[in-house]
Amino acid sequence: MPEILSVKSSAMAKNDLVAAENRAWFRCRGMRALNFISSPGAGKTSLLEAMAARLGRKLGVITGDIQMTFDADRIAKAGAQAVQIETGGSCHLTAEQIRKELLARPWDGVETMVIENIGNLICPSTYELGEFFKVALLSVTEGDEKPAKYPALFLRAEAVLLTKIDLLPHVNFDVARAERDCLKLNADAKLLHLSCKTGQGLDAWMDWLSKRPV
Amino acid sequence: MPEILSVKSSAMAKNDLVAAENRAWFRCRGMRALNFISSPGAGKTSLLEAMAARLGRKLGVITGDIQMTFDADRIAKAGAQAVQIETGGSCHLTAEQIRKELLARPWDGVETMVIENIGNLICPSTYELGEFFKVALLSVTEGDEKPAKYPALFLRAEAVLLTKIDLLPHVNFDVARAERDCLKLNADAKLLHLSCKTGQGLDAWMDWLSKRPV
Repeated sequence: MPEILSVKSSAMAKNDLVAAENRAWFRCRGMRALNFISSPGAGKTSLLEAMAARLGRKLGVITGDIQMTFDADRIAKAGAQAVQIETGGSCHLTAEQIRKELLARPWDGVETMVIENIGNLICPSTYELGEFFKVALLSVTEGDEKPAKYPALFLRAEAVLLTKIDLLPHVNFDVARAERDCLKLNADAKLLHLSCKTGQGLDAWMDWLSKRPV
Repeated sequence: MPEILSVKSSAMAKNDLVAAENRAWFRCRGMRALNFISSPGAGKTSLLEAMAARLGRKLGVITGDIQMTFDADRIAKAGAQAVQIETGGSCHLTAEQIRKELLARPWDGVETMVIENIGNLICPSTYELGEFFKVALLSVTEGDEKPAKYPALFLRAEAVLLTKIDLLPHVNFDVARAERDCLKLNADAKLLHLSCKTGQGLDAWMDWLSKRPV
């Protein structure tokens, strides 16, 4: 195996081991744990604010960003328990970073833990963090060809949230095409339409989430 | 130096050497060469279509994507010379990939070569491809905090194009904040407002581009 591939493969194997530990940690506490993945600006933080307004401190959020703590501040202000990881420059979170945050505070009363990954449709898709399932967010301003272009994410996402659906009249986005491509990659994907601006779809999302077995 | 860092550093050193060769190739042919970097769906391909309609075969485009050739097809249909690199899963283009494409065809008559990088605000920022300068595209639907969050790109971009400016009335985007943060990172950055839908700003962009010395 070429040296670079072998180093990468060994780093991923180590990541997967730590992810398994994180998964055991979540399971032991009966927490539902999910991983939000999307482009930058697809609305992960806005959705987490809306969820925090409903779940309060039952929602835990570990949010990753290159730098700045804007996201955790917004989510904590909305009522959830939130912490920010500043990665410096890495393009995805790692299981080790998550483990450190899980052990660093009590997370008392958290029932749902959302890991808000770095805004990136590529690198976070293949790094397990210990979550039980992945959720992809795709804003209708990004283009309906994204599921076909970024299969690594959309074949792994158990739910796909089409966000900023209120902007649909102003953009050229073929919902049927995007959804058809999602289902080609994962026939069981749950597809939902969301707008954090109007509140459309929030009830359906919270309902699906609360019923998803952990 | 830890093994993974040393391998990464040696891979980047090799990339920089090939980038220098590409730069010499562009210079020898008197081509202006630039690197478009943005999130997925910020409008790189739409802008290249608009540029192709004006420049025709004087515009060359090497476009990268995880898979699919939608982008190159759209740009070629609009009149430019375009080729697609399907990276399989990599999150940025490399100088070696660009070199192969430069040598694989004549590129006769091309005066401006745009490398359309993989949609990603992080990984492409630090990989030189041989371009003379980088251009960041930021759509107003993505959020005004992006320059502060992704400094690696915005400190290197010689021009920042705020795209989809026609959607400004429908989103919560503080143009002054985004631009202030861009200028904090790079006081010389050229800031432009663009809408490929209405055509706003296209003349100013083409004018700036044609005058930028190579």
